[in-house]
Amino acid sequence: MKAKNLESRISSVDTLIERKKEEKRKRLLDAAYTCFTEHTISGTSIAEICAEAGIAKGTFYLYFKDKEDIVRALNKRISYQVLCNIYHSHRKEDFVDHAVRMASELIHYFEKDHEVVALMKKDFVWPIDEEGFVTCDDPMMIDIRNDIDAYAAKSGLSSHQILVRVYALICMIYSVCYSSIIDHFPSELSQVKPEIDAMIRSSLAPSKKV
Amino acid sequence: MKAKNLESRISSVDTLIERKKEEKRKRLLDAAYTCFTEHTISGTSIAEICAEAGIAKGTFYLYFKDKEDIVRALNKRISYQVLCNIYHSHRKEDFVDHAVRMASELIHYFEKDHEVVALMKKDFVWPIDEEGFVTCDDPMMIDIRNDIDAYAAKSGLSSHQILVRVYALICMIYSVCYSSIIDHFPSELSQVKPEIDAMIRSSLAPSKKV
Repeated sequence: MKAKNLESRISSVDTLIERKKEEKRKRLLDAAYTCFTEHTISGTSIAEICAEAGIAKGTFYLYFKDKEDIVRALNKRISYQVLCNIYHSHRKEDFVDHAVRMASELIHYFEKDHEVVALMKKDFVWPIDEEGFVTCDDPMMIDIRNDIDAYAAKSGLSSHQILVRVYALICMIYSVCYSSIIDHFPSELSQVKPEIDAMIRSSLAPSKKV
Repeated sequence: MKAKNLESRISSVDTLIERKKEEKRKRLLDAAYTCFTEHTISGTSIAEICAEAGIAKGTFYLYFKDKEDIVRALNKRISYQVLCNIYHSHRKEDFVDHAVRMASELIHYFEKDHEVVALMKKDFVWPIDEEGFVTCDDPMMIDIRNDIDAYAAKSGLSSHQILVRVYALICMIYSVCYSSIIDHFPSELSQVKPEIDAMIRSSLAPSKKV
């Protein structure tokens, strides 16, 4: 009985430590977001991020290797949030229609929020954990995996082919939105959008063997 | 006669100044490349770039606004060099075959040189000058424009549609090579490459109206 008590107390202490760590990491990411949008990434030092987060500078390195590391972690968090926001609307549609609709919402989101475009640049980071796509147990990732498998069953494309193509298309949209909005090349988004739609449809079209 | 002499002397002084400026800019870019590959971008200061170039720090700001500005200028230069290296081989082929072949050479180049991948990240910069694609008088750009116009004439796609799609595909390749090589996602390049080829072919296929 005593042993069990001790075990459960150790486990709840562990959980508490884990939660505290997660909370500090989140505070650093929030602070980085604030600093980067106010002073740009290259205009922000790690000391400034720590000051904004109210966390000692030494502690920063328990969570991130360097500034580049926190930039990527932030891009991963934003990529995840953006994907969450657009994934579940219209999910009942046909896979390809859903992909085109999501691209539309993504472009619309970037058009409204140039700050996030300038911050992320072209760096969409697929929001998986270290174990990778197949084992990831995040609910949205499970939905995406199921949708890909279901489309694989009827399109003649393998799940791997669909994943690579979907991922490449999202990367393409991030890059082209950045250059349209920030560099004004190749043209305005309204003129780029129909081409993106066409490329999504042709890239995800069922294989001819079906 | 005297006036003409003076004119021609002023013009040759102007050319000399222009050449000196171009040479300093080039030295700064070379120095930035050396520093970034040796110490990463975030581990390099503007002072270090100037020291490497043997140029006074104040002079830096005559050429570049800040570190981000020189990073982009460097990406633009590398993008141009890479495009030059791959564009002219096999140019006599069919437009779509040529595009697939170029993608292949681009991927091969990135596979051999991870340093340049880590440096450029996902930032392919279309190498045009400020006046834009249509007026740019660089010989390679003229070839690209002519090839696009010729393909427009027989594919049923407009030159603008082709330019946007080609640009989007190059961006996609840069992004996916970066994540395959650096993040090992979505998979090894050898498994990604057939999907990229398929997406190039379907994206640039002649319009059905033809």
